[in-house]
Amino acid sequence: MATTFDIQLAHYPRGFHLITRNIVSQLPLLPENGLLVVFIKHTSAALTINENADSDVREDFNTFFNKLVPDGAPYFIHTSEGPDDMSAHIKASFLGSSVTIPIKNHRLNLGTWQGIYLCEFRDGGYSRKLSITII
Amino acid sequence: MATTFDIQLAHYPRGFHLITRNIVSQLPLLPENGLLVVFIKHTSAALTINENADSDVREDFNTFFNKLVPDGAPYFIHTSEGPDDMSAHIKASFLGSSVTIPIKNHRLNLGTWQGIYLCEFRDGGYSRKLSITII
Amino acid sequence: MATTFDIQLAHYPRGFHLITRNIVSQLPLLPENGLLVVFIKHTSAALTINENADSDVREDFNTFFNKLVPDGAPYFIHTSEGPDDMSAHIKASFLGSSVTIPIKNHRLNLGTWQGIYLCEFRDGGYSRKLSITII
Repeated sequence: MATTFDIQLAHYPRGFHLITRNIVSQLPLLPENGLLVVFIKHTSAALTINENADSDVREDFNTFFNKLVPDGAPYFIHTSEGPDDMSAHIKASFLGSSVTIPIKNHRLNLGTWQGIYLCEFRDGGYSRKLSITII
Repeated sequence: MATTFDIQLAHYPRGFHLITRNIVSQLPLLPENGLLVVFIKHTSAALTINENADSDVREDFNTFFNKLVPDGAPYFIHTSEGPDDMSAHIKASFLGSSVTIPIKNHRLNLGTWQGIYLCEFRDGGYSRKLSITII
Repeated sequence: MATTFDIQLAHYPRGFHLITRNIVSQLPLLPENGLLVVFIKHTSAALTINENADSDVREDFNTFFNKLVPDGAPYFIHTSEGPDDMSAHIKASFLGSSVTIPIKNHRLNLGTWQGIYLCEFRDGGYSRKLSITII
């Protein structure tokens, strides 16, 4: 039996943000074994799993992605929504719209240093909607 | 209970193509809650989720990826299958071989602007095989 | 019913390594249809699916990723764990912490040329822990 429900995140500014606790605090009792899928219902933000300790890691992610996919690159033709829109779409697909995490003994089976990142690529940022599935 | 079956796509040329309707039209009645996994059985094409509205977005994806991973880069040693083969492998892993989409109330729980892209990286393109799993 | 268990890989050096057989040899009888999720419990290594034939492909992956995300880039601020640490985190999120593979007729429904890669980004490498889920 699967459970699927949506949650709304608070507003986060452009950058990479650790949201593991936000998500875990909204989960029901987990099955003994299974999967948690967190899916973001947007195309200019993404989810990934990375280091949960030093916030410098999130800052370096932001620096690197902004260099790799420049806002307003001269060869972009999808420009009507602003210089940060097309770059956001590309970054979103690089990192992906979902993370899949094993459940073991009723708990997320993450490594010690793993956390879930919200990757917000739009200037100003938004309040993003996630879909949670537990199987 | 899971359902798994393969489908064959039409031929698509090199580039990024919106295939949501092709896939949805081939799905059986979906469970109330669950997951749809679409998996591509090839290593020089990929799947991703991105904007379903303006086709310029797909064109910019193609431009950006062709710049980031140049065909026939001088440092590639896997060259026997042509200049677009090794670049295709790298692009395929960047975007990934599957997309996982939540099912809620018997429907795909996608955001308003989200669609499924076939990312075809080989010159000429192919008719690609997908594996569909519903859980 | 889901099954989740951890396995420990042997030590692999920095680079891309085909581990399909290692994983398949440790699987129980698979269900008729379903999903296999392989998840890596680390943030400086990743999993991806790509060509299983020519080892030059894995070498070109290594070359390309080392160029794209340079060790010790001057703009990184997370430097306390060595020049290969921040680059490893970024590469890990590019490729992702899990692969999801359909199961059909009690077998992995991979394409002919697809294999599972361990992507090890730290100098020296480690013995990595994977979590396997079968649904």
